[in-house]
Formats: sequence, C-alpha cells, structure tokens
Amino acid sequence: MVFISPSITLYPSGAELPQIGFGTWKHVGPQATEAVYSALKVGYRLIDCAADYANEAACGAGLRKAIDENIVSRSDVWVVSKLWNTFHHKQHVREAVLKSLKDWGVEYFDLYYVHFPISLAYVSTKERYPPGWFFDDKQTQVIQDPVPLYETWRALEELVDEGLIRHLGISNMSSVIVTDLLSYARIKPEVLQVEIHPYNAQPKLLGYARTQMLAVTAYSSFGPLGFRALNMPKALDAQPLFTHPVITEIAANHHDHSKGLNGKVHKSATPAQVILKWALQRGLAVIPKSDDRLRMEENIRVGLGVGGTEGESSEGGFVLSNEEMERISRLDIGLRFNDPSDDFGCYIFC
Amino acid sequence: MVFISPSITLYPSGAELPQIGFGTWKHVGPQATEAVYSALKVGYRLIDCAADYANEAACGAGLRKAIDENIVSRSDVWVVSKLWNTFHHKQHVREAVLKSLKDWGVEYFDLYYVHFPISLAYVSTKERYPPGWFFDDKQTQVIQDPVPLYETWRALEELVDEGLIRHLGISNMSSVIVTDLLSYARIKPEVLQVEIHPYNAQPKLLGYARTQMLAVTAYSSFGPLGFRALNMPKALDAQPLFTHPVITEIAANHHDHSKGLNGKVHKSATPAQVILKWALQRGLAVIPKSDDRLRMEENIRVGLGVGGTEGESSEGGFVLSNEEMERISRLDIGLRFNDPSDDFGCYIFC
Repeated sequence: MVFISPSITLYPSGAELPQIGFGTWKHVGPQATEAVYSALKVGYRLIDCAADYANEAACGAGLRKAIDENIVSRSDVWVVSKLWNTFHHKQHVREAVLKSLKDWGVEYFDLYYVHFPISLAYVSTKERYPPGWFFDDKQTQVIQDPVPLYETWRALEELVDEGLIRHLGISNMSSVIVTDLLSYARIKPEVLQVEIHPYNAQPKLLGYARTQMLAVTAYSSFGPLGFRALNMPKALDAQPLFTHPVITEIAANHHDHSKGLNGKVHKSATPAQVILKWALQRGLAVIPKSDDRLRMEENIRVGLGVGGTEGESSEGGFVLSNEEMERISRLDIGLRFNDPSDDFGCYIFC
Repeated sequence: MVFISPSITLYPSGAELPQIGFGTWKHVGPQATEAVYSALKVGYRLIDCAADYANEAACGAGLRKAIDENIVSRSDVWVVSKLWNTFHHKQHVREAVLKSLKDWGVEYFDLYYVHFPISLAYVSTKERYPPGWFFDDKQTQVIQDPVPLYETWRALEELVDEGLIRHLGISNMSSVIVTDLLSYARIKPEVLQVEIHPYNAQPKLLGYARTQMLAVTAYSSFGPLGFRALNMPKALDAQPLFTHPVITEIAANHHDHSKGLNGKVHKSATPAQVILKWALQRGLAVIPKSDDRLRMEENIRVGLGVGGTEGESSEGGFVLSNEEMERISRLDIGLRFNDPSDDFGCYIFC
C-alpha cells in the first residue's frame, strides 16, 4: 500500500509541492540510505535534505535504490537541498550546487533553499566538507563574511536558468528580508522553510506568507523533540509535545480510520499525527523524519482527510475541529529552538 | 541653568551623538515650535523629528527662534529627520530630503533615518503631505510598492556625498536586514532607532547592535504611554509603567541630587527618570518627548551620573544597581506597540 501526500500549488510556477515530505536532518550513513529508500516505498515523494546534513550521498543512494527497483522514477520525487552559509559569494554558489548534485547523483534539484540568511567565511570543499559553522577544524571560530543576499540570489537564478535547479526556496528568513528579496528577485522564492510547531506557531509570519502567496514548510514540527537529541538545554527543559495533555487529549478524541501495515486498523490517532494535522490544516507543508517504517506511515497518513490518498482510495483520516486547532495554537510561547545567535553569534531573529 | 546630555561615539564616523535627545512625535503646530524652543533652552542638543510627524516646519521655527536668540548655533544641534515610506524609490529620496530640509529651514540634516523597511506607493507632495500610510484621501488603501533597500540606500549615500546629510540611520529594522544592509552599504548606518522599553527590552537586538558597533536609540521609552493617546487597545490594556510597582519602588530608593528649576532640590527620583536611567545604563540613546519644561528638565537630568553635566558641574545624579537594572529588565514580555502589521498590513517583525 502506498500513501500519497496532498500537495500545495506553488506560486508563481503552479508546480505541486508534496505537503508531507520526508526530513533527513541527523540521518547518517547507511541508515540515511535505508530511511530514504523506505520513505519512498511508503509513498513519500519529497526528500528534504541539505549540504549541511552531511548525508547527501547516503540519501542519494537510497533514491537510486528505489529508482533501480522501479519504486519511483526521478521525476516522481522532489529532491531538495540547501545552500550552506559558507557558499554565499557568487563564485561559490555554483560550486556548492554542483557538489550537492554530484553527492545526490541527480542532474537537478527540484527545490533548492538558501539555508540561512547568514554568510560565513568560505571553506574549500577540499579542506572540509560540509564545513559546518566553524571556520577552523578545532571548532573555535565562527567567521562572518557578509554577502548581500541579492548577490547570492542572482547566482542561484543563473542556476535555475541552466536547469540545475527547478524552484528556489528560502529558509530561516523573516518577513522584512523576504519583502526585500521579493522586490528584486527575477525568479521568486516559492517556499519558505522555518521552525514552526505548537510552541512557536508564528501566526503573523503565516499571515505574511499568505499575502505573498509564499508556501511555508514547517521544520521541527514536533518542537523540542529533534533538539533533545542534541542535549540543547531549552529543549530538555520544555515539556515534550507527545505527552502534553492538550495534544494527548485531542489524540484520544480521534480515530485514524486508515489501515496500517498488515491491514491493521489504527484505533486512535497518535500525538504525532495530531501535531502534523494541526500543521497541515494551517496550510503548512511538513517534513517529519523517522527511521521507523511504521512511523513513516503514521506520519504520511495524516494527509488523509486533507487531500492525501491511500492506495486507490482517498477515504479515511481525521480532521481537527476549529476549537481543537485553537487549543493547540494557544500552546504558542514563541519558543524557538534553532537560533544561531545562541551558539554561533549569528543574529537573524531579533 | 543648562543640562548637557552625555554622548555616544558613533562608528565609524567618531561623531558624538547626544544620548538624550528631544522627541517630537505628536507635537503639533505652535506647540511644537514652543516645545523645541524650550527644549533647546533647557539644554537638549538633538531634536528627533520625521517627515511623517507633520511638524517639521513648526519644529524648524522653534530652532530658528533659539538660534535668533543666541541660545544655540546651528552646529550645536543635531537636527534629525526620517525618510517616509512613500519615498523609497531612488527618484523620490532626494525630493523627500529636500522637502524636509526646506520645512526645517536648515541646509543639512545631522542624522537622517529610513523610517521603516517598508516601501509604499508614491504620493506626490503636491497631492498630500505628509501622506501617511494610506494611498487615498479617504484612508482606505495601503498600497505596498516594494523597492530594494539597496536602491534607497544608494540614493541616500549620494545625498551624504552632497553634504545634505551628515549621518545615516535606520529605524524599525531587525538584525537580518541590518546585516544585509551592512554587507553592501558604502556609507554605513550609524544609528538604529527602535521601540525599546521595559515591556520590550530587546536584549538580543542590543547584543547584535554591539557586535556591529551600531548605536541604538530607543523610542517610546515609556512603553504604552505614547500609544494610549492613540487609543491603541494593547496600550490601554497594559499596566502603565509610571505606576508599575517595580518602577515606583526603585524610584523611591533614589534621590535626584541635582537642583531643578529655581534651584529647588529634588528629593526623589521619578518613575520616568528611573525608566530613562535604565535605558541610559544599557548604553541606549533616548528621545523623550514632553511639552512641560519641568519634565524636559527632569528627563535630561537623568544624564547626570552617566556622563551628562549640569551647568558648570557634572556632580549629582543617581545610578541604578545591577539588581535594579535586572528587576526592570525582567518586566520584558516582548510587547511591541508599534507594529505596522496590526493596522496597515505591512509585516516587518515576524
């Protein structure tokens, strides 16, 4: 059985972006290959990756395996990567894209983001790759080397012209820089990827994105979860969302009518499904990560009821009531986990 | 007796910006003239104004009166104005600056800000001036007409080259757009003016500004006070700072050792003085407004103890303890009153 995600129509291209994609941050080595392969088998048609995740070759191997086994063809899948902060100078943008394409083993990216509105001193791919935040191997110095965003953007537009990139996106950006970018971009960014979860709901940013017809992808949909693995104090201090009473109570109210692996009927929605549903009903794209095939299915099955399909049928799935949506939205405390000013002295959210 | 404000050394020019300036927002007509004249007499040496305040000619008349009476000479005073949102296209920047200079009756501005990182459709000065946020006389349509900030900035740089502007500033901007601007600005912005008060303390933004050696001017230092006059609901709902127990308790702990009007010794610091002192000790410039000469004195006297002088002497003044500074900083709830997305659909803070 294959689950197919609903999609979001991008502006201005009209392309259909899978609303539920597969996230690969922190997947490493053969596990990344296996995860991507499994995700494609389950039905995921967007793989969200980045040079900085240090797993592009491994993810590409998973895609190749799925293509070799005729599970998908290249054109079925959105392959997504991101420009790392050390490659913002116009002379480095092409090098970064070519390197990521080579690692993935693909001819083009469907969507290519600017990962952060932060430009760091260049580190040659021969020296260290991916270089991460620090300039030196000992990881002591973060060196900012500001480049105008218009310079980086023009270099990316040229790669769209050449066919190496199909759609451009921006990540970790806020309204003021997006408006500026939109004023001069010849090729508009079509997707904005930012940290959104119940603790950081960002309703104003979503309102803004709607005015610009910019699709929004939420990352870290499960809030502190992804950052607890990094031992981030503010993530460890936060109440996990999966056990938050608001989420668990709402989960208990709903049945996941779809059939899971082995045809087993799922009786109750899970907290993860509730959180993803809240995002989908707000019109967001999501990119949950998992290395467990059951959870991969659980996550993509959230698309049922909001336009996704299961096998041949589009029945099933639950829908959150307005009141439930609002209860979850009221968990918002503006708590952002991924703020590069905390660890790297790069200020973008103040 | 004249009170002289301490100053902040600007980067990179080395110029000395008066740390306590006089704010003119909402001063109108002859009252604005009188207020500016009085402020100069009291000792203020920076008049913070803007085309949008619709009082530049009146403020200019107050300056002229003070010059005519030999209270100040032109070069003693920082005359400050701001580019309104409808003049961001390169062909309109000069028109806006020339109009403001003419209204003020001065040959140059000491400091000229971009008022907002928002570009609205042009309205001719012949049609309506200042035009405000709305495109039409009936005040129904806000029309955004995005212009790259680099275009606006280059036009301003040319006016610096011509001597019409001495220093450039930016207002209502956040770190991400400031970093971008700094990456291409030939003439750097030297001052950032933003809303800062105990309810919106912006510690991260101040940390960022320090990394860029950018001076910061706080507007609306008294928090909701200036917005209550506009019947803004969130300002009416907020506890006024002048009666907040944290502020009044700290005020009662301190004596304003300086002598006021008629040589009367002030026994206790006022809540207003405590709030301004908190700002000055954080290294901020402030621009309190008043139309009462006693309050003008009360406000500028806060400079005593942090480098300001009174008449011939620099004695007196109180200093907040670290513990008192922190108590005030803990009032921060990220409550911003001036957010153009609320009333005008222009998003810059999300």
